[in-house]
Amino acid sequence: MTLDLIRTIVDVRKRLDLSRVRSRIIALVPTMGALHAGHGALIDHARREADLVVVSLFVNPIQFDRAEDYQRYARVLDQDLEFCAARRVDVVFAPDVDEMYPQPQKTFVEVSGVSDHLCGAFRPGHFRGVATVVMKLFTIVQPETAYFGQKDAQQLAVIKRMVRDLNVPVRIVPVATVREPDGLALSSRNERLTPEQRRVSPVLYRALQAARQKILDGCRDAAVAREAGLAILSTEPEVRLEYFEIVDAEDMQPVARITGPVCIAAAAWLGGTRLIDNVLCEVAG
Amino acid sequence: MTLDLIRTIVDVRKRLDLSRVRSRIIALVPTMGALHAGHGALIDHARREADLVVVSLFVNPIQFDRAEDYQRYARVLDQDLEFCAARRVDVVFAPDVDEMYPQPQKTFVEVSGVSDHLCGAFRPGHFRGVATVVMKLFTIVQPETAYFGQKDAQQLAVIKRMVRDLNVPVRIVPVATVREPDGLALSSRNERLTPEQRRVSPVLYRALQAARQKILDGCRDAAVAREAGLAILSTEPEVRLEYFEIVDAEDMQPVARITGPVCIAAAAWLGGTRLIDNVLCEVAG
Repeated sequence: MTLDLIRTIVDVRKRLDLSRVRSRIIALVPTMGALHAGHGALIDHARREADLVVVSLFVNPIQFDRAEDYQRYARVLDQDLEFCAARRVDVVFAPDVDEMYPQPQKTFVEVSGVSDHLCGAFRPGHFRGVATVVMKLFTIVQPETAYFGQKDAQQLAVIKRMVRDLNVPVRIVPVATVREPDGLALSSRNERLTPEQRRVSPVLYRALQAARQKILDGCRDAAVAREAGLAILSTEPEVRLEYFEIVDAEDMQPVARITGPVCIAAAAWLGGTRLIDNVLCEVAG
Repeated sequence: MTLDLIRTIVDVRKRLDLSRVRSRIIALVPTMGALHAGHGALIDHARREADLVVVSLFVNPIQFDRAEDYQRYARVLDQDLEFCAARRVDVVFAPDVDEMYPQPQKTFVEVSGVSDHLCGAFRPGHFRGVATVVMKLFTIVQPETAYFGQKDAQQLAVIKRMVRDLNVPVRIVPVATVREPDGLALSSRNERLTPEQRRVSPVLYRALQAARQKILDGCRDAAVAREAGLAILSTEPEVRLEYFEIVDAEDMQPVARITGPVCIAAAAWLGGTRLIDNVLCEVAG
């Protein structure tokens, strides 16, 4: 088996129609490229479950709220292709911007509620752009399953809600966050950290863990659990916190009392780099 | 062949998957029921082109801007089933509201630009509701083709744009408006007209025709062509005009000079009943 690199919508449909006729299960792993072991976990999971694995590489302009972040986003196609070949991906779909948006995009998929807090509050239009491009990828590739990282917990919640509300016949599979040995969640943006910022960065995960431990120890007051996390973060003044919230794990709404599964999520800046992370915490009522 | 009446998403998918395996071409005619000869033209067109014709009957609450209009909308399932059986429809998909919206709908498909003028300006949220339910029907039924009446010209433009922008693999087929002998466009809402209102109602079409004739006679100034239509309407003071516009036939934006295909569209009230109509007009620059 060799890896097919496909650049156009027409060609990827043609390639996949052949497989569909043979009733093969098609899995999609949507990415923005700059692949790392976190994406590797998505691909491996897809590889185990599907007959045919499609990885999309597309830096989606309409989900960036800051032009600078879009321009700086790493684009390393050759490296990504090697990465995919080594993991026995069947098809890499890497359209350019004109292929995905041949005319100004006028149609958007909006998921309210789930999108309102956390990153949604700080990145206007971000989840609208994510939901729209994922819907496009779903209608182009028509996969049976699609794989998303738990690292982007709110994105995962948005996509799950979209799929449910619009009856999209795709099963969404969440995959656990992959971390560096010191706890930093893998992200293509980690490359931008200076050595000093990199040293400091695991404090975000430690703070999330502290809040989680507080809950596991019996605390049901979200404000108190949150304080436990903030106390850890305050030890590193270089970290500029954007948010640190405890939300319902499904609808991403902030909770005051913890009575079910929650997601503890945070975003923070280290210099010009924005990092996000989250941990899940289930309690028995 | 007998007509299958199917009430649930699971069952309609199961029924259609069987046909898909045999590579039959599936056509969808989305309707809100209360079928008349206008729908008949959609069904006949679908019947000629497809192996399997699905008619959906669903009065979609999220596209009504007025609760009263939603409640008054005719629901005549038995009559609609007879209508479909006589036209050799294969499957009627008639879900109830809880089947289509089992939980509050949070995800909406918004088509900007095309939706902004004409009905979009007077019926807030209407086209958002239309685009969302049509997207749901497309993901549920997964037809190759779908049939829409030219009578709802802006709706047709919205759906065409949605399909293009979201890469939905459905071919949209427009079908010409069906009219009463006196010119009134068929509509389920015509039933609500009093005999006197019914007598007056064809003036809307006559006004559109007058504007069209002005253009065909060489007029390229949209304001002047519009005046020709308004002059006709002013002969019937019972008609309360909502809008009368000349717009680009594709993007539904008002034009000042007529340089390409336009749609002349109007909406008017007769008592408590709102009627819409439109005519296309192509000129050679």
